[in-house]
Amino acid sequence: MSTTATEDETTARHRPATTDLRGPLAGLIGRRRPGYSLPAPFYTDRAVFDHDLAAIFGEHWLFVGAEPEIAEPGDYVTVQVGTSSVIVLRDDDGDVRALHNVCRHRGTRLLDDRRGSTGNIVCPYHQWTYGTDGSLLHAGQQPAGFDKSCFTIKQVAVRRIGGLIFICLAEQPPADVDEMAERITPYLLPHDLTRTRIAAQDEVIVQANWKLAMENNRECYHCEGSHPELTCVFFPTYGYAVEDLPPRLLPAHARYLGAEAALERTCDERSIPYAAIEELHGRPTGFRIQREALDGGGESYTTDGTAASTKLLGDLDTARLGRLSLHIQPNAWFHFLGDHAVVFSLLPLDVDRSVIRTTWLVHSDAVEGVDYDHDRLTDVWRKTNAQDAALCQRAQLGVTDPAYQPGPYAPNEYQVDHFIRWYLERLEHNLGREADR
Amino acid sequence: MSTTATEDETTARHRPATTDLRGPLAGLIGRRRPGYSLPAPFYTDRAVFDHDLAAIFGEHWLFVGAEPEIAEPGDYVTVQVGTSSVIVLRDDDGDVRALHNVCRHRGTRLLDDRRGSTGNIVCPYHQWTYGTDGSLLHAGQQPAGFDKSCFTIKQVAVRRIGGLIFICLAEQPPADVDEMAERITPYLLPHDLTRTRIAAQDEVIVQANWKLAMENNRECYHCEGSHPELTCVFFPTYGYAVEDLPPRLLPAHARYLGAEAALERTCDERSIPYAAIEELHGRPTGFRIQREALDGGGESYTTDGTAASTKLLGDLDTARLGRLSLHIQPNAWFHFLGDHAVVFSLLPLDVDRSVIRTTWLVHSDAVEGVDYDHDRLTDVWRKTNAQDAALCQRAQLGVTDPAYQPGPYAPNEYQVDHFIRWYLERLEHNLGREADR
Amino acid sequence: MSTTATEDETTARHRPATTDLRGPLAGLIGRRRPGYSLPAPFYTDRAVFDHDLAAIFGEHWLFVGAEPEIAEPGDYVTVQVGTSSVIVLRDDDGDVRALHNVCRHRGTRLLDDRRGSTGNIVCPYHQWTYGTDGSLLHAGQQPAGFDKSCFTIKQVAVRRIGGLIFICLAEQPPADVDEMAERITPYLLPHDLTRTRIAAQDEVIVQANWKLAMENNRECYHCEGSHPELTCVFFPTYGYAVEDLPPRLLPAHARYLGAEAALERTCDERSIPYAAIEELHGRPTGFRIQREALDGGGESYTTDGTAASTKLLGDLDTARLGRLSLHIQPNAWFHFLGDHAVVFSLLPLDVDRSVIRTTWLVHSDAVEGVDYDHDRLTDVWRKTNAQDAALCQRAQLGVTDPAYQPGPYAPNEYQVDHFIRWYLERLEHNLGREADR
Repeated sequence: MSTTATEDETTARHRPATTDLRGPLAGLIGRRRPGYSLPAPFYTDRAVFDHDLAAIFGEHWLFVGAEPEIAEPGDYVTVQVGTSSVIVLRDDDGDVRALHNVCRHRGTRLLDDRRGSTGNIVCPYHQWTYGTDGSLLHAGQQPAGFDKSCFTIKQVAVRRIGGLIFICLAEQPPADVDEMAERITPYLLPHDLTRTRIAAQDEVIVQANWKLAMENNRECYHCEGSHPELTCVFFPTYGYAVEDLPPRLLPAHARYLGAEAALERTCDERSIPYAAIEELHGRPTGFRIQREALDGGGESYTTDGTAASTKLLGDLDTARLGRLSLHIQPNAWFHFLGDHAVVFSLLPLDVDRSVIRTTWLVHSDAVEGVDYDHDRLTDVWRKTNAQDAALCQRAQLGVTDPAYQPGPYAPNEYQVDHFIRWYLERLEHNLGREADR
Repeated sequence: MSTTATEDETTARHRPATTDLRGPLAGLIGRRRPGYSLPAPFYTDRAVFDHDLAAIFGEHWLFVGAEPEIAEPGDYVTVQVGTSSVIVLRDDDGDVRALHNVCRHRGTRLLDDRRGSTGNIVCPYHQWTYGTDGSLLHAGQQPAGFDKSCFTIKQVAVRRIGGLIFICLAEQPPADVDEMAERITPYLLPHDLTRTRIAAQDEVIVQANWKLAMENNRECYHCEGSHPELTCVFFPTYGYAVEDLPPRLLPAHARYLGAEAALERTCDERSIPYAAIEELHGRPTGFRIQREALDGGGESYTTDGTAASTKLLGDLDTARLGRLSLHIQPNAWFHFLGDHAVVFSLLPLDVDRSVIRTTWLVHSDAVEGVDYDHDRLTDVWRKTNAQDAALCQRAQLGVTDPAYQPGPYAPNEYQVDHFIRWYLERLEHNLGREADR
Repeated sequence: MSTTATEDETTARHRPATTDLRGPLAGLIGRRRPGYSLPAPFYTDRAVFDHDLAAIFGEHWLFVGAEPEIAEPGDYVTVQVGTSSVIVLRDDDGDVRALHNVCRHRGTRLLDDRRGSTGNIVCPYHQWTYGTDGSLLHAGQQPAGFDKSCFTIKQVAVRRIGGLIFICLAEQPPADVDEMAERITPYLLPHDLTRTRIAAQDEVIVQANWKLAMENNRECYHCEGSHPELTCVFFPTYGYAVEDLPPRLLPAHARYLGAEAALERTCDERSIPYAAIEELHGRPTGFRIQREALDGGGESYTTDGTAASTKLLGDLDTARLGRLSLHIQPNAWFHFLGDHAVVFSLLPLDVDRSVIRTTWLVHSDAVEGVDYDHDRLTDVWRKTNAQDAALCQRAQLGVTDPAYQPGPYAPNEYQVDHFIRWYLERLEHNLGREADR
């Protein structure tokens, strides 16, 4: 008994439902004007969305959670990517594994809950029983010669970087994740996520295509007008070239220069890296990392900028470390602060609907009500997320309007442009691979 | 910097998503049997619906509101036509303008509300700021050389006729609207809509294809059985040839003849036109207008037929003017009475869902509770609308059934047939134009 | 005036919307591995679903209710099959008829309610009036020469077997229903459904493709783990080959053998047939019938196995008749007991949504609260249905996951395999017929 014959079929599902999309998609890509937002079908067409699921979310590394979410053997979270459900769990050996949430008998979904703890994984339909490594331990009423080893739960590639968990649904995940890991790990280490715990987690449904939600994240052109809480500490000069700064932002810029100089001294004294690395496109695992100063108290994402938790992360001796911000294509962004970390994962639900999961991590020893206040910790980003969701929904309504015509990105939206470039590169790469097949 | 290159793309959206529809659509048109209702796909197929949005709602004049709805500079209503949203507003010069409700930056929807009042139009995303004429006044953080004049909000053609506002989404709107305006204006003038105000407005969602809702409006074969309130004053003989009248309607016919003779005298004495003009097909802007007597008190759409408002419209000296009824393809019908006007606009929401907006207008000086009672004014048509919505929903369920087979229109449904003829003419015209491209 | 020309059009609706499906569908059929569950698109693809509606539900006999549901002339139930609505009614002559629920004028749905009683059928739109035989009796305002006999409500084939009502939407229903009727009638007669009445009816919406719901019904591999109430009396050894019985089931098997021997004696003494007939595939009207012993009290589907009603069905003198179980492809299963019958009809609503209607029938003379208790009668199957609905929903989620790969049916799932074989045979038959056209 062999499963080889039907493996092809599953792989086929990761490719677009119809190869006929290649022509139209190549045409659409060709219609994009550099520096301008995408033609409407990229945001509104279900066939493009299905292709995104396959070519973007099926082929790249996706951030799905932090290790403290699955601290003990048997702890798991389930992650929905399009119609894929993946169990990310700590196995009996303490390793992190990702398993497709699908029984090998007749395909039943194995685990329902968003998070939980399990021993062996028992399918509720016919009690096929799997170990936490996915191996089939027991299947009732099978004929002689039934080979359990052919019915292991399908594995998903998994990668841990500084306490962050990434999965990749592809058979051959992009190898450049190793090089990214090597470069960002020194930035992450001082915050030591392995010694944190989840203080809060929040899910926001955004009524917009996932790319509009990403575009929203990749610029702060909209921050001044929409995010009063965030801009208490997030310098509204973000993304501006100095020569383009409007006069009203010059005082903020002056503060920024002072804060940056202080931050660099603080970091240099502690050998903490801060310089920007920006490789948002031109590679499968596009990313950007930089430590930058915060306004106000300069310590954390609170409305006055002072730390939200008195227990600093790792072995840090100061909270005045600004924000270490990390962007990874296609679905994640992160802010590591002296006193906590707030990490974001975006996943597509439908062509016009996405979910953003926000997780706040504090030191393992931090006690709620003593070392930090839950509401003060989460206030800025909860409000900011809600403001962004409303903007993204408006944007979806607009691009769905036949009158929509792509418009120009402003200079301080250059990271939006880099995201779009990355996206189109990856589509073209994927179309090329399909053509080779 | 020029926007010419991408204009084509927007125009392209107004055409069917796939040119492959032309063959099937021509086939469908060919299958329609004259005098019979349409083959099912016209009412149920999403591709046909999308084509209707483009070829009918994208190419013809649509009634969207009465001038008193936007009495002052800055007053606006937003109108949804399929996925198009249009701002119809009175600009700072007092003119009526129609603007696509889409920001020229990244496409965000500009205004949310169904109605309101605005100064400059400020996009809530990045604060691009437009004048009420649509011109871009301000866009932050743009590079040198950014030409604001390239980013005016896209304009929609607008036409005012006797206080009624029409828009057309096409680049080249049908020119025959001028001739229609010339012919119907003398009928409308005595009711002087410019000196009215909105007494009530009502939206009814109809769970049916827009053409079923139009068909429902274009005949009164169903009135006797379904509209007890309406038939207090609307002669149930409507649409009948005299020789086809059933015996039970002969008393009503006798009353009708008497009322018509009286109405003609009343009109002749005042030089008020009443003769029917019927050009419901054979032209882009199909229409029909006629003043006809009402039963009962003969004055208004109330259950006893007497006027609902004591302040007559315009400078009228009598309320006994029956109903001036105007039908315009593809989406509107109107009744002008001595004491008020009730106007209807139908817009498609989805293949099986439409909205009918009903607006009651009274003299600007009429005071609620003094000159008219709100419930008495609106009672007949609110009930009639609800009755019609239920019938249309049943009709949609029926035509969606595979057992549906087009059936014959009765002689008193001839205006339904004229609507369908107009519809098919317009589709054929559109297919011909596409073939020429 | 003739309707011949347009009849073709309606027939055309029963075939797949696009003949282009033939190639992909043949490919999908070819991909199915014998003994394994179906490739995902069979459960998830809307085009396949539409084809199922046409090729399976449009071409085969469907169980839609029991005669006591429409006991008196004018009594009717409406049955929804995809977008088809069918009126199943007892006509004025006491015969059972099935009529498409569509007016011949403009296609309006005639009757709304799931069940009711009617005299003539009057369309609520324009009062076209039909007799209970579907003939058009009256249509107002028609021109001279209008031939009412051309506008009879379209008839649906109907077949009564031992008090069960089947309909077939096809022009040429499968003829082998006669032979099935002949063979199963002797089994059904002792339970005499014509002398029963409805004690309860229940509808459960299952969030799964109809084939997953059928697969669920066709095996009891899942019963031990999921149906604690059912397995009080339903032997968990169902479907096992003796040599495959696991040790824990040997005591149950011993009870089964004893109960079977007793049942055979009881039946032989009364000339009641019990032997299995199993022709689940290889014919259009696949079926299986067998009388088998029940565990516990051995009489009925109650948690202790004793009869739920003291009034036995027909002229039976004992309740210890086990369960007479009947399976008919594609949509029905039945259990006839000494004291009641419980019958199930499954109908597809959408690609991932189905409805199961369960009806409990007791002797016409049985009085609730005296001869039977409503809750005790319905308890086992209400709970079992709810448990199955949850399992089916999980199965749908699983097969929709791109990681789903068809898995092997266990030996005690052989009836699932027979159902799938039947299904694929029928698709192939249908594709062959289309190719001949």
